[in-house]
Amino acid sequence: MDGNGIDEGKVEDGFPHEEEEDDDVNKNKKGAGYEMSVEQIFERRQVPPWRKQLTMRAFGVSFLLSILFSFIVMKLNLTTGIIPSLNVSAGLLGFFFVKSWTKLLQKSGLLRQPFTRQENTVIQTCVVASSGIAFSGGFGSYLFGMSERIAKHSGDNGGFKNPSLGWIIGFLFVVSFLGLFSVVPLRKIMIIDFKLTYPSGTATAHLINSFHTPQGAKLAKKQVKTLGKFFSFSFLWGFFQWFFTAGEDCGFASFPTFGLEAYEYKFFFDFSTTYVGVGMICPYIINISVLLGGIISWGLMWPLIEERKGDWYPAGLSPSNMHGLQGYKVFIAIAMILGDGLYNFIKVLTRTLIGLFYQLRGRQALPIANQHSPDTSEKLSYDDQRRTQLFLKDRIPTWFSIAGYVTIASISTIVLPHIFHELKWYYVLVIYIFAPALAFCNAYGAGLTDWSLASTYGKLAIFTIGAWAGSNGGVLAGLIACGVMMNIVSTASDLMQDFKTGYLTLASPRSMFVSQVIGTAMGCIVSPCVFWLFYKAFDDLGLPESQYPAPFATVYRNMSILGVQGFSALPKECLLLCYAFFGAAILINFTKDILGKKWGSFVPLPMAMAIPFYLGPYFAIDMCVGSLILFMWQKLNREKADAFAAAVASGLICGDGIWTLPSSILALLGVQPPICMKFLSRATNTRVDKFLNPQS
Amino acid sequence: MDGNGIDEGKVEDGFPHEEEEDDDVNKNKKGAGYEMSVEQIFERRQVPPWRKQLTMRAFGVSFLLSILFSFIVMKLNLTTGIIPSLNVSAGLLGFFFVKSWTKLLQKSGLLRQPFTRQENTVIQTCVVASSGIAFSGGFGSYLFGMSERIAKHSGDNGGFKNPSLGWIIGFLFVVSFLGLFSVVPLRKIMIIDFKLTYPSGTATAHLINSFHTPQGAKLAKKQVKTLGKFFSFSFLWGFFQWFFTAGEDCGFASFPTFGLEAYEYKFFFDFSTTYVGVGMICPYIINISVLLGGIISWGLMWPLIEERKGDWYPAGLSPSNMHGLQGYKVFIAIAMILGDGLYNFIKVLTRTLIGLFYQLRGRQALPIANQHSPDTSEKLSYDDQRRTQLFLKDRIPTWFSIAGYVTIASISTIVLPHIFHELKWYYVLVIYIFAPALAFCNAYGAGLTDWSLASTYGKLAIFTIGAWAGSNGGVLAGLIACGVMMNIVSTASDLMQDFKTGYLTLASPRSMFVSQVIGTAMGCIVSPCVFWLFYKAFDDLGLPESQYPAPFATVYRNMSILGVQGFSALPKECLLLCYAFFGAAILINFTKDILGKKWGSFVPLPMAMAIPFYLGPYFAIDMCVGSLILFMWQKLNREKADAFAAAVASGLICGDGIWTLPSSILALLGVQPPICMKFLSRATNTRVDKFLNPQS
Repeated sequence: MDGNGIDEGKVEDGFPHEEEEDDDVNKNKKGAGYEMSVEQIFERRQVPPWRKQLTMRAFGVSFLLSILFSFIVMKLNLTTGIIPSLNVSAGLLGFFFVKSWTKLLQKSGLLRQPFTRQENTVIQTCVVASSGIAFSGGFGSYLFGMSERIAKHSGDNGGFKNPSLGWIIGFLFVVSFLGLFSVVPLRKIMIIDFKLTYPSGTATAHLINSFHTPQGAKLAKKQVKTLGKFFSFSFLWGFFQWFFTAGEDCGFASFPTFGLEAYEYKFFFDFSTTYVGVGMICPYIINISVLLGGIISWGLMWPLIEERKGDWYPAGLSPSNMHGLQGYKVFIAIAMILGDGLYNFIKVLTRTLIGLFYQLRGRQALPIANQHSPDTSEKLSYDDQRRTQLFLKDRIPTWFSIAGYVTIASISTIVLPHIFHELKWYYVLVIYIFAPALAFCNAYGAGLTDWSLASTYGKLAIFTIGAWAGSNGGVLAGLIACGVMMNIVSTASDLMQDFKTGYLTLASPRSMFVSQVIGTAMGCIVSPCVFWLFYKAFDDLGLPESQYPAPFATVYRNMSILGVQGFSALPKECLLLCYAFFGAAILINFTKDILGKKWGSFVPLPMAMAIPFYLGPYFAIDMCVGSLILFMWQKLNREKADAFAAAVASGLICGDGIWTLPSSILALLGVQPPICMKFLSRATNTRVDKFLNPQS
Repeated sequence: MDGNGIDEGKVEDGFPHEEEEDDDVNKNKKGAGYEMSVEQIFERRQVPPWRKQLTMRAFGVSFLLSILFSFIVMKLNLTTGIIPSLNVSAGLLGFFFVKSWTKLLQKSGLLRQPFTRQENTVIQTCVVASSGIAFSGGFGSYLFGMSERIAKHSGDNGGFKNPSLGWIIGFLFVVSFLGLFSVVPLRKIMIIDFKLTYPSGTATAHLINSFHTPQGAKLAKKQVKTLGKFFSFSFLWGFFQWFFTAGEDCGFASFPTFGLEAYEYKFFFDFSTTYVGVGMICPYIINISVLLGGIISWGLMWPLIEERKGDWYPAGLSPSNMHGLQGYKVFIAIAMILGDGLYNFIKVLTRTLIGLFYQLRGRQALPIANQHSPDTSEKLSYDDQRRTQLFLKDRIPTWFSIAGYVTIASISTIVLPHIFHELKWYYVLVIYIFAPALAFCNAYGAGLTDWSLASTYGKLAIFTIGAWAGSNGGVLAGLIACGVMMNIVSTASDLMQDFKTGYLTLASPRSMFVSQVIGTAMGCIVSPCVFWLFYKAFDDLGLPESQYPAPFATVYRNMSILGVQGFSALPKECLLLCYAFFGAAILINFTKDILGKKWGSFVPLPMAMAIPFYLGPYFAIDMCVGSLILFMWQKLNREKADAFAAAVASGLICGDGIWTLPSSILALLGVQPPICMKFLSRATNTRVDKFLNPQS
């Protein structure tokens, strides 16, 4: 994950970034008695050559963690599409596993190579690359949006392609590596010359650095313990809940916490530890935005629109019909997402171009990048010297990356049209010609703002390629084009984040690159398999009332339909509402930027507000519970909360996430839960009691 | 409450008694810089004359608290009959209310009299006396056992007398004050000459003393805050649960935590904060005994006996028929309770007599009392001197108590046969002739062992008077005789505990006595009203499957039936099993005593084991959860757990207890909960779903 924008829910992480992390390192220094810079602390530790950084054990651990995180990301994809940054969990768990392993070996005298922070970085990179595929593979968005089920549900006749393990793996392999090759040559420019911040990458690096100081290791050990506790709790809670879900609307996930009427409009607490954890990781403003969006849509608009039934849209439609209320839900959400996306796209692009312009003109005046890297004007510090020296030691030749890109692009251009007949080879070619530029833009933008706009670029592809192909399979062509584009730009910014992490932990760029390649390859196999498990285990995957509604699959498909068919498909007054919300999204963003950092942080995020439009506010309530817990914890014990909140949240998310593995296996084996915890109104209950005990 | 045996569930409190409390006081002394005895710390504080100890505000607060505790005790009476010692809560809350009140007055300049520990003792005494009536009034045992509902349920034709506010209040007024007068003349002998321990009274006194030292007040403030937090939580949780209880077997109280099959045999966690709190207060061994009893009975014996259906007892009987499985449940429990009661009666009586013998022979060799009062052989300490001086200052003339006893006994002898026609005047007279001796025995026994055997003496009355009256209304006569006896012996030991508390806090015996009289009078009015509220609000009160099964009402009535009819009513093999469990109870007690303090404390208590025989082990699971929480808390932070566990437990019990007030008012007003949280097996759920949505 690149811990970035919440485009389709990839949210900025709420963890202490540079400033706070630096404090942490400072503490360590003070602990040592006098002020030392990070690299001075590590001075005596030898940096292993790049081949030695790539150990078997690192990839073993990475593989395990990548399965774990693929499950988590897949679950998040398929439930709400909100994916918090899991970098910290990946770093923490990677440290834990290898440290335990090396300790074990050390005791048995078999340890040949000590555990270094470079190796830790390799693991983190590999895991993030691998589980990144679970997101950019589009299992919850474009890829699943091509399926027959979503097509039927959207009520269009734009064709379908049902998921199947074979073509998904093939597809991912031919598109996922391009992003890596496209930006590798630019790493020196971005990291050393431009000194871009990459907040998530920097935060992760600080985390890994701190783990490998003695004091940091102690804290990490405690954090891992906390994580483990909440992991077990969350896993067991998931297990316990399972027993009571013998039917639809059964179990804790259907608990009408605020009464049955509120439940009908999806206002309830569904006892999901995952989203309580997500709420603890996400900044308060995101949680509040989501809740606000939920209140506006399900608390206000949908009930009002429902009253117009028979007037605005025909009464008697099935609740999932796109020409009914469902259409309003989906298209207003799309309008808001597009408005937000467009605004941010233009904003980040402008900043990217201005930044580039200044960079290239003089490499001195850096009005934007300067905000983030105050040490540009200083002489190079010891840390920077050492880091730059090691970063430049292991070069990756430019010809290698160009050759790689061209080769894979050619293969891809030939193979893709064979997989998807709707996608002509010249569409692919056009994408691949423009992709490197967009990949660069995205990597640069992420470096400045920590926002990856991958899915915005993807939407661009949906509309351009969709419109180009037109009614001749345009819906599918748009979705696939989206996938191709998203994969390239997303991996590009991921890789650059990792290069930054590697730079700060003295890991070699070569080992970063290799780790990313291996991680991506893992992801291309693991993610489809995980998705396959979900797909086979849960028959109602993707249906709006199911446990896994995969909301963005519907949203993406409808975007594509919109691209092909125009606005003709929308129900009455829906277009007007869409314009209003599109405008509102831009206006809110604009207000946020105008108000500046201090007041702007109180303005909600339109992207976050849009997610509950389709899904309902129940997960927003979970997330706000998480926020509330964090808030109270911080009030009670700020220091402890800051140190352990991330571990608690990760534990909650990971435990519930990994429970989906046994739960889907149980579903596959046909083992069904024994009990239904049902919620009936008093009147219904009396009827049911009479039905069950006719004699009494 | 007198914090004593668990005869009918009145359990010893698990709070730190003398030794630990002394530690606490020691700490305070150390805080003062040098070693001071308790009374030296309080030396400068004036002891107000006895009339000044009895303030209006004290009785105002007592009245409020007595309502609170009557609700709690009534709820406990009617659910399981297990009542933990609430002395600590009473002391704590009394301190909190008066302290807040005086602080408020102090600020407004209206305070005339400061809050003294004597006043605190007066409140505690009054509250304990008042809520004691909620127990000894037999609303969950003999008194409700006379009702038509229980008579029907027990399937006998021994007559009934339905509860009615008028006669209950009258009955309580004529029997409740006798105990007070019967032991008042003996207070000097018991407290000063015999120096009996009265562990609960002593513990309460130490608590009150510590509250009034500056450090103690600080701790008390924190404890009150903790209590308040858990009070609110428990209250709100009760409120939240209410919404989901729209029908039978609905809501959290019917949560099949361990599956539906286990639920059928009452193995489940019913989310009752009351019993989690009770579990935290009760010693581990009680909780384990209760669980063990539940496993033996509902996990093993009842399923096995059920297999003999049609052989041992006729198949097709209603589940509450005493000639079926229900009979085994009730009578085996009675056998065990009687075995335990008999053993302890003989044991305590023997010790009482031996103790008395030594006391009277030489007032020197005190082999038994010595264990508890090591300072007998020493010269009188400053504390003892001062305490004795004040204790002897305010005398209560002996003629006053004798005249009081005779007057009330005469009135009672005349009035009682008019209320209950089955009770002849000479039965009452006989009881009143023997009662003072038994009251003395009980007060003396409680002083030595902290066990009040009130209900054992009550059972004695059931069997003797029941057998005497025979089939001529013997069942009712036995139950009433039980009530008369229990009230006398129970208040006698309560009063003596309070005298001990007063002795240690320099409260005057006169103010203690007056406070007890006023408290008893309060209880005679408050308790019946509270019971009346329950009785009117919950139609199914006393039925085995209801929210308030009042188990001991059935048990007491069946004892009385047994006393009248002999063993003829028992189903097949039941008598044999009863003998076995009667013997086992005695054997277990004997083993416990033989093994000594160290190993004996691991032997379960038969009385505690018998309670779930009838009710099922669900509350045992709650209590063990409480134990577990306490255990883990002690492991994590022993000091904090010891200081706050009682406050947490009290908060949990009080909050849930006081929720029963609004809940019963809601029931009275006919406001029913809106939702039923139902638990259905998968098969049933499918049927219900089809029934509710026939089209799908």
